[in-house]
Amino acid sequence: MVVQERLEITTRNREMIEITAQVQGIVAASGIKTGLCHLFIHHTSASLILCENADPDVQRDLAAYLNRLVPDGDPLFIHTQEGVDDMAAHVRTVLTHSDLSLPVADSCCSLGTWQGIYIWEHRYLGHRRRVTVTIYGE
Amino acid sequence: MVVQERLEITTRNREMIEITAQVQGIVAASGIKTGLCHLFIHHTSASLILCENADPDVQRDLAAYLNRLVPDGDPLFIHTQEGVDDMAAHVRTVLTHSDLSLPVADSCCSLGTWQGIYIWEHRYLGHRRRVTVTIYGE
Amino acid sequence: MVVQERLEITTRNREMIEITAQVQGIVAASGIKTGLCHLFIHHTSASLILCENADPDVQRDLAAYLNRLVPDGDPLFIHTQEGVDDMAAHVRTVLTHSDLSLPVADSCCSLGTWQGIYIWEHRYLGHRRRVTVTIYGE
Repeated sequence: MVVQERLEITTRNREMIEITAQVQGIVAASGIKTGLCHLFIHHTSASLILCENADPDVQRDLAAYLNRLVPDGDPLFIHTQEGVDDMAAHVRTVLTHSDLSLPVADSCCSLGTWQGIYIWEHRYLGHRRRVTVTIYGE
Repeated sequence: MVVQERLEITTRNREMIEITAQVQGIVAASGIKTGLCHLFIHHTSASLILCENADPDVQRDLAAYLNRLVPDGDPLFIHTQEGVDDMAAHVRTVLTHSDLSLPVADSCCSLGTWQGIYIWEHRYLGHRRRVTVTIYGE
Repeated sequence: MVVQERLEITTRNREMIEITAQVQGIVAASGIKTGLCHLFIHHTSASLILCENADPDVQRDLAAYLNRLVPDGDPLFIHTQEGVDDMAAHVRTVLTHSDLSLPVADSCCSLGTWQGIYIWEHRYLGHRRRVTVTIYGE
């Protein structure tokens, strides 16, 4: 069986937004007990990650690290017409993930105790971001 | 239903080659309308990415960024017998992706407007690269 | 058909452990001939990678590279109560992979000649790490 749903997430700025609850709700409603849940973000300047969700400092530190690793306005970049954050956003997306697959067991995504699912907006301005959730199994 | 096909791509040097059209052709021919399309590259010195495919400067900037992030001939490396690009190619592969999964809807990969699928050769010399495409769904 | 199994791997310290043989054993026992094998690690401070498995120097160099890219005890980090390796471990996990999908053909994972599956412990101390293996296909 395959169930496919669409999630729309509105970001406000460069930020991580946890979407674990929405994904778990879609999996529960799918009627699939055992299988996989696949998430795909239809953009090249926002990405999907799993991150520790107990201490908000982890998200803050991860954000600070990536800001330093991929500097906005890097003089290396020539694709700059959409702003200093645009090419950096593309690089950040490639270094993280556009898709995630999670095991489904007992009708929910079987995550570790501290694993949360996040959408990561890499642009300075918020956007309406599209994620397709595909659940398949039995 | 599961359909599995093989793609062979010949690279000429360190470069990105867009394979979106070939992948869409395989998905269309598979007869699967809804599900997922999985791509896997059978090598440790070439990888798969999704990249903005409207402005070639994005690929150029991404390449320049990765060349700086993972320097060829890094004195840190001791695995050097195959050339200064070899160990860098392994690192570049781990930092990007050996597999991608894409949602299939209406008999094609449902990509974002600017998302293209690329094979990224990380060695200086071209190679014949093998990609397995597995489509499953209904 | 969907088959889901659990792997438990005990790490001793920050290290890579090859798990290719265990995964191939699970795939062979599943009875699935063609499809996909999905691996998921239920932790945010250990990850999964594919790495060249012929020359151990490749793993050594990859480890040295990541140690330099994500410095332990980075003064940027404020999430430090669990030790200097803790936040670095979260970053290292995000920059590598929490899940891998591999094509299954002829009842085994169809890997490249030099591709091995590794669990990568990012903490200094060993842990008991949980990996879920989900195989689906025909």
